[in-house]
Amino acid sequence: MQITVLAGGIGGSRFIRGLQRALEQDHPGSQITVIGNTGDDIWIHGLRVCPDLDTVMYTLGGGISAERGWGREDETFTVKDELAAYGVEPSWFGLGDRDIATHLIRTQSLRAGYTLTDVTAALCERWQPGVRLLPMSDDRAETHVVVDDPSGATAPDGAPLRTAIHFQEWWIRYRAELPAHEFILVGIDEARPGPDVLSTISEADLVILPPSNPVVSVGTILQVPGIAEAVRTTSAPVVGVSPIVGGAPVRGMADACLRTIGVETTAAAVAAHYGARSAEGVLDAWLMDTRDAEQVPAVEALGITTRAVPTMMTDIDATAALARECLSAGAVLARA
Amino acid sequence: MQITVLAGGIGGSRFIRGLQRALEQDHPGSQITVIGNTGDDIWIHGLRVCPDLDTVMYTLGGGISAERGWGREDETFTVKDELAAYGVEPSWFGLGDRDIATHLIRTQSLRAGYTLTDVTAALCERWQPGVRLLPMSDDRAETHVVVDDPSGATAPDGAPLRTAIHFQEWWIRYRAELPAHEFILVGIDEARPGPDVLSTISEADLVILPPSNPVVSVGTILQVPGIAEAVRTTSAPVVGVSPIVGGAPVRGMADACLRTIGVETTAAAVAAHYGARSAEGVLDAWLMDTRDAEQVPAVEALGITTRAVPTMMTDIDATAALARECLSAGAVLARA
Repeated sequence: MQITVLAGGIGGSRFIRGLQRALEQDHPGSQITVIGNTGDDIWIHGLRVCPDLDTVMYTLGGGISAERGWGREDETFTVKDELAAYGVEPSWFGLGDRDIATHLIRTQSLRAGYTLTDVTAALCERWQPGVRLLPMSDDRAETHVVVDDPSGATAPDGAPLRTAIHFQEWWIRYRAELPAHEFILVGIDEARPGPDVLSTISEADLVILPPSNPVVSVGTILQVPGIAEAVRTTSAPVVGVSPIVGGAPVRGMADACLRTIGVETTAAAVAAHYGARSAEGVLDAWLMDTRDAEQVPAVEALGITTRAVPTMMTDIDATAALARECLSAGAVLARA
Repeated sequence: MQITVLAGGIGGSRFIRGLQRALEQDHPGSQITVIGNTGDDIWIHGLRVCPDLDTVMYTLGGGISAERGWGREDETFTVKDELAAYGVEPSWFGLGDRDIATHLIRTQSLRAGYTLTDVTAALCERWQPGVRLLPMSDDRAETHVVVDDPSGATAPDGAPLRTAIHFQEWWIRYRAELPAHEFILVGIDEARPGPDVLSTISEADLVILPPSNPVVSVGTILQVPGIAEAVRTTSAPVVGVSPIVGGAPVRGMADACLRTIGVETTAAAVAAHYGARSAEGVLDAWLMDTRDAEQVPAVEALGITTRAVPTMMTDIDATAALARECLSAGAVLARA
């Protein structure tokens, strides 16, 4: 089978690892295409860094730091420390030495005129992630966050001045604790889906929205012109997994993101935000944690097939079991 | 006093350290300007690397590897190893992790439109080398080396095909063992001396050609249009120190360079190559090692004041003593 997954970083990558395990056992020969979020991409010290693409690549390729969930195992930070000794900013980004090799190759290749899709494929030749990893777009479309100016600057009338900072600065430097008024996807209107992105959605046997951040990961991918439409119109079932369990994100700071767009931090509210395909949304089915079982009827009422299952990806077996629930939900829908 | 030194990498830097010591003791308040060779500069993995400028900066700023003479003390090579794991070339360049921070700042600043002179000054704010370090030019002028194609490729008539490789490839990868037919300074005709380069030569109290490589370091600097003329016409005495002792370079592979341009590897031949200022050359005085004392008359015959002195820079005191010989030779000439 052909499965297409719209993924952010850590949550998406871990889910895909479980999906690979489930497919190896139940559907050998299946192929997974991952459409990766590039809204978090950033230029740091002249290097083009693609955090979500790299998290997918390193996680599936066996190079990820198991402890941090991002960046490389056995990482060192010599270059970062030296940059700090020079006093150059930014100093808050966790630029690891091993990781820098990836960024150097990417940056040089992009400057030479290769597309991010090409570069990502070239990097994956080393990592062999076992999936086809496609950036959502080869065009620059970056998430910026409107906040009150962190310096405390105010207008003449005493009102806080607002400023837009890069998502990474908000996420890492301010740990998403600085109230966000709005997310702005700079360049999204002109961004085109990467090559094969639309066709891998429309020609898939199953499309999965894994438990990635529904706002700044999956939400960003869906805002690339044409992608949401492709998800709405594919003949494949579309199954989502809630990243919210018991009213809180399993990891990351999705609650701060949801608050910004006015969505409650509950599994049902996220499902409603994605919406039913039958009502201009993107979901056919929604899996949420057994702890949130009482929310099932509310989501079903939206026209979304809903199941309460164990969603905690505590280890590879639990994650494969969750992936099997997705496959099963998809199979039921495909037969319907 | 104002002293201007035309320097390459290791030999020049060590000499300048001795010169600083001598001046601190004998002429406090003196200022040294170093005109650095940038003909060795190279793009490596998208980073702009300036080996000679950095050797001067690190040596005088206390950051140099004492053992290697180039690159940083306590250096690690994680990024280099990772680049090799990706299989990208070149793999022969010794790109250290600490060093990479310098290159990242330089590269980003150059891309932002700053000149190499500006960038070098900014980097030196950290290192405080105690000299003003000026690139010979802000324009790209790189030394390439014409060799028989290393692949062994031949023309239809069986003759070896010639190819030009970057100086660093010839020097590091092939350890200057590949016979060089010619050095080509790509871009030198259009290169302009950096800001203040000509004035620091013409307004100096003493100009020194330290025991740097006379072909690919000092020789390259002198080929920037206007610089040799400034050296020929300055009112300051010009004193050179032989990098050749007993018919061999003290370090480095200057013999291979001299062979390429048809100059014998002797102290006297290098002096003759530089030439007397009275005969369209650049030297007023030449210091060569006591081991080469028998060559003194031959150099004197060229119209160059010549002394045989200990030139081995075995430690800071010996180096300061050599620098004092330069100061003394300059003082004698200035009085004449």
